[in-house]
Amino acid sequence: MSITHKLEVFRGRRIKLYVEEHLLPNGNKTLREVIRFPNSVVILPLITFDKIVLLYQYRPAIRKWIYELPAGIIEGNEDPDETASRELIEETGYKAGTLKQVFSMYLAPGYSTEYMYAFIAYDLKEVGAKPEPYEVIRREIISIDKALEMIKNHEIIDAKTIALILYYTYNKNNIISTLRK
Amino acid sequence: MSITHKLEVFRGRRIKLYVEEHLLPNGNKTLREVIRFPNSVVILPLITFDKIVLLYQYRPAIRKWIYELPAGIIEGNEDPDETASRELIEETGYKAGTLKQVFSMYLAPGYSTEYMYAFIAYDLKEVGAKPEPYEVIRREIISIDKALEMIKNHEIIDAKTIALILYYTYNKNNIISTLRK
Repeated sequence: MSITHKLEVFRGRRIKLYVEEHLLPNGNKTLREVIRFPNSVVILPLITFDKIVLLYQYRPAIRKWIYELPAGIIEGNEDPDETASRELIEETGYKAGTLKQVFSMYLAPGYSTEYMYAFIAYDLKEVGAKPEPYEVIRREIISIDKALEMIKNHEIIDAKTIALILYYTYNKNNIISTLRK
Repeated sequence: MSITHKLEVFRGRRIKLYVEEHLLPNGNKTLREVIRFPNSVVILPLITFDKIVLLYQYRPAIRKWIYELPAGIIEGNEDPDETASRELIEETGYKAGTLKQVFSMYLAPGYSTEYMYAFIAYDLKEVGAKPEPYEVIRREIISIDKALEMIKNHEIIDAKTIALILYYTYNKNNIISTLRK
């Protein structure tokens, strides 16, 4: 359980790539290609307890438009809730009165260090979206039931979005009672 | 919505890294660091409709032991259900009588092409696990209720595992009636 060699292969704007040799807990050695990527946030913006904001977004890496919840990278010394607040405004135009972190997750722990914090945003006020020039986004307001249907129908095919919408659905009563406090 | 330049930076065992210039639907150009990664599967193995197999696994990339459902990369010309069947045996020692694909997802569509197919495995027979030398895995059989508690308590912090356990919980009645056919 230690790194016996480490080679930096690439240092980009966001991605750093390493080839690492690891000594495993079972005594074997293994060579790994590891991406170091900043940590990040995803936000479920509640217009009401039954209506959410969903984005339809062009993603160059996969050459596709997909549905996603607002999300983004933690910049500099931000706390995750500062990132959540900032990304929510930039991508949806809503400022959250209440932001509650509910869980967190590795997205691809086999090769990427990215760790993502999941938030519920409530008590929203429109202040105007500020997308970056490279962000190509359309905003939709849909019901939670519609979102669940879109997961079943394979219209929503993004892991963080599926996880957070299902988490909210499963814990809805608890979450609502916390948001109301 | 076209690629105007593409530079291969690294071609490893599993990861290929490109720097790409894209022309976006809004007319702007953007430079992206893109990981090409094989597609993959994740499997929820049902011992009964209320008991699952969960792995506790050492992940060199993040230098941590984490709880995860069995998962793996689609090799060569495999169909996703062949991969699911193979990985389930290798990682848990169970052969599935019934495998049902339920949804699919991009894990990190901002920078990785990896697309993952999610399966439910049922009607399990013990045939003996065959872990790779670099796989360091412990197997646990736990109830779905315990797994849901572990998501709430931040003991399960893996996106694919959270998404698939919550999906099964939300669609349990439908899924069970399909598996019984």
